[in-house]
Amino acid sequence: MINPRMQELGSKRSVIRELFEYGKKQRALLGEEAVFDFSLGNPSVPAPADVGDELTRLLQDEDPVALHGYTSAEGDLGVRTKIAEYISGTYGVPASAEAIYMTVGAAAALTISLNAILTEGEEVIAITPYFPEYKVFVEGAGGKLVSVPARDDSFYPDTQKIRDAINERTAAVIINSPNNPTGVVYDEGAMRELSNVLREKSAELGKTIYLISDEPYRELVYGGADVPYLTKFYDNTLVCYSFSKSLSIPGERIGYIFISPAMTEFQSVREAICGAGRSLGFVCAPSMLQRLVARCLGKTADITVYDKNRKLLLSALSEWGYEVVNPDGAFYLFIKSPSGSGKEFSERAKGLNILIVPSEDFGTPGYARLSYCVKTEMIERALPHFKKLIESYKG
Amino acid sequence: MINPRMQELGSKRSVIRELFEYGKKQRALLGEEAVFDFSLGNPSVPAPADVGDELTRLLQDEDPVALHGYTSAEGDLGVRTKIAEYISGTYGVPASAEAIYMTVGAAAALTISLNAILTEGEEVIAITPYFPEYKVFVEGAGGKLVSVPARDDSFYPDTQKIRDAINERTAAVIINSPNNPTGVVYDEGAMRELSNVLREKSAELGKTIYLISDEPYRELVYGGADVPYLTKFYDNTLVCYSFSKSLSIPGERIGYIFISPAMTEFQSVREAICGAGRSLGFVCAPSMLQRLVARCLGKTADITVYDKNRKLLLSALSEWGYEVVNPDGAFYLFIKSPSGSGKEFSERAKGLNILIVPSEDFGTPGYARLSYCVKTEMIERALPHFKKLIESYKG
Repeated sequence: MINPRMQELGSKRSVIRELFEYGKKQRALLGEEAVFDFSLGNPSVPAPADVGDELTRLLQDEDPVALHGYTSAEGDLGVRTKIAEYISGTYGVPASAEAIYMTVGAAAALTISLNAILTEGEEVIAITPYFPEYKVFVEGAGGKLVSVPARDDSFYPDTQKIRDAINERTAAVIINSPNNPTGVVYDEGAMRELSNVLREKSAELGKTIYLISDEPYRELVYGGADVPYLTKFYDNTLVCYSFSKSLSIPGERIGYIFISPAMTEFQSVREAICGAGRSLGFVCAPSMLQRLVARCLGKTADITVYDKNRKLLLSALSEWGYEVVNPDGAFYLFIKSPSGSGKEFSERAKGLNILIVPSEDFGTPGYARLSYCVKTEMIERALPHFKKLIESYKG
Repeated sequence: MINPRMQELGSKRSVIRELFEYGKKQRALLGEEAVFDFSLGNPSVPAPADVGDELTRLLQDEDPVALHGYTSAEGDLGVRTKIAEYISGTYGVPASAEAIYMTVGAAAALTISLNAILTEGEEVIAITPYFPEYKVFVEGAGGKLVSVPARDDSFYPDTQKIRDAINERTAAVIINSPNNPTGVVYDEGAMRELSNVLREKSAELGKTIYLISDEPYRELVYGGADVPYLTKFYDNTLVCYSFSKSLSIPGERIGYIFISPAMTEFQSVREAICGAGRSLGFVCAPSMLQRLVARCLGKTADITVYDKNRKLLLSALSEWGYEVVNPDGAFYLFIKSPSGSGKEFSERAKGLNILIVPSEDFGTPGYARLSYCVKTEMIERALPHFKKLIESYKG
C-alpha cells in the first residue's frame, strides 16, 4: 500500500546525515566549541553581494507577472541565451540556448538526464568513491549502477577497468570533477583517454554511451588547477551544472543541463529531457532564480576561504603523518585511514569529537572524507585533536 | 539509446500549448488586439505587494548562508510549523509540522505523492474531465490511470461509478476542486459521499485507498463558495497544494503536501514521501521561497479581477444561448459545444481568432475550456465575436 523502495529511501538516513545529527546532539551536550563537524558539504561562505543586489533589483524593476510567471519548460529563452554565451565564451565550445535546459539544481539535472536516456535495466557506470545519491538516482530511473574503482594512486578514472565494464547494456558513465569525496580534479589527458574509450566502445557496440559530467564544483579549484570542458573531447556529453556551490545558494536549487550541440541524436535527447522533466513534475525551474543566475554568471562566493582552510589542514595533517589525496578542487579532503578501515577511523575520530565520513559509504574502503567548507576557527581549534588522533595509532 | 516514453512526452506538445503557440503567431500576423487567447491557465494578475516586500525584507534581514542554504528535505521546520498552524487555524483540522512536506509546486507534490504510494501496475482513478498531466504523472510513477466520468449534469464525482471502478489494484483517487477544466467546486455532501465509498471499499478490499486532493485553486472561489477541507472527512488524504495561483507566482514552483495526521500509516507514508522526493531529485524546495510563503499565508493576489471576468462572460454568453457549467471557482468556464463536438467548437472559434481548448483533451467530449485569467479588456473586445460564433450555429 506504500512503495517499499521509497519508504526505505526515506527512512534510512545517509551516514553523512547521521553524523551531522550526532554532531548537533554533541554540541548541545558539550558546547559549540567542543565539536568539530566536518561531515556536510554545505557551503559556509555567504553568497556574493551580487545575489542579494540582483534579486532586489529584479523585484524593483521587473513586472511581477513576468518575473514570477511560468517560463517555458526548458527555461526562459533570454536566460538560456546568456548561459550559452557564457559557456561558449568561457570554455571555447559551441553552445546555443537550445542546448540548455534549466533545472532545480544538479540533483534534478541528474535525475532528468538519467530518466531521459535510460531504459529499464540499462547500466550506468560510476567511479568509486562516488556521491552515494548516484545509486538512488540511477535506480529511480529504472537503471542499475555499476561501480568501477578509481586508480589506487591518483583516484583518477581507471580507463582500462571502465572499458572492461562497458557492455551492450551500458547507457552512460557518470564522472564528477572536481570530485566529491576526493577533491581530485581530472586533467585533460585523463579526459581524452576516457573519451577515446567511450568512442571506441560506442562504435564497437553500435550504441551511444553517454558521458554525464556532474559539475557542481567546477569553480572551486585551487592553485590554478584547470577543469577541462568535456564537450571538447566527447560529443555525447551531458553537463549537469549547479549554482549551489559557486554562488553559495544550495537551498535555492538552480542549475542546468548542457546538451552538447554535437551530440549524435541532439534533438531526440533534448526532447527526452523535456519529457523527463515533465514526467518527474518539474514544470520549470524557479523563474526569479533563473533570472538571477543569468545576471551572476562567472561570479562566485569568496572561495579563498576554502583555499585557506585547505592549506591550513594540508600542512598540519601532512606534518603529523596523515596521508591525504592531492586535493585540487571542491572542498573535501580524502584522508587515508591509519588502520586501513575508514569506519574505524571515523569512529575513533568521533571519540575526539571530530566528525569525518567513512569512505565505505562512497564505495571505497580505507579513507574518511573531511569537508572543509567550515569556519577557519573551527579548523584551528580542531588541529590539536587531529594530532592526538594520529598519535593514538602510533601508541 | 533514449527512453522512448520520455521522448514522446517531450516532443508531443499538449493541445493547450499548441493553441497558445498558434495564438502567438496569429498576434504577430494580425496584431495584439485581433486575437482572443483563452487557452492558458496562467495567472494574469500580479502577485500581491507582500510578495515583493517580504522577499526584499528577507534579503535585507536574513543571514544569506541561512536564507539560501539547504533546508531539511521536508522543508524548514519554522516554515512547516507556520503552515501547519495556518491549516489548523483556517480549516479547523489537526495539523503539525511533521505532516507538511514542502515541494517545488503542486506538480511535484503530485509526482512525489504518487511515487510514494504506488507500486508497479497499480491504478489511480481520476474523474473526467481532468488536467491531462495526471496521466503523465501516474504513468511516470509506474501506475495506470483509470478514468471515471463525472456526472453529466453537475460535473461532480459520480460516486457509484467510482465505487464500480475500484478494485484490488486501486491505490488512489485524485480529485481537483475547484476544478480544472470545469470551474466546479465540490460541496461537503459530495465529499462525504466520496469518503464513505473510499472507506467502504478500503475495508472490503483490506487495503488503504488514498485520496489525493489537488488544490492549486483552493482560494479562487466566487460568490462565497465553500471548499471543504478533505482531511475532515477522510483520514487517508494527501492534500497537494500550490501557492502558484493564490499568490500569482506560478513560475516560482512552491507548494506542499499535507499528510493527514490521522492517516492509517502516517509514519510510513511520510517516509515514502521523503524517499520519493529524494529519488526524483528534489533535495529540498527552494529555501527563500519557503520563507516567503510562510510570511504570506492567507494572502492572495487580487482575485476580484477573475470574478469580474467571470461575471462579464457568464452574463453575455448565457444571454446569447451558450450553455455553461456553473463555475464557482478556479478561472475556467466549461462551455457546451453547440454542435456536440468540442474539437469542432474549438476549431470554429479559432476561425474567429477565439482560442478555447477542446474538452476531448481533458477526457470528456462536447465542451471547450475557456481560461478567464486574462485582461478584462480582451474579454470586452472578444464578446461580439462570441456572439458571431453562436449565431453561426443558428444560421
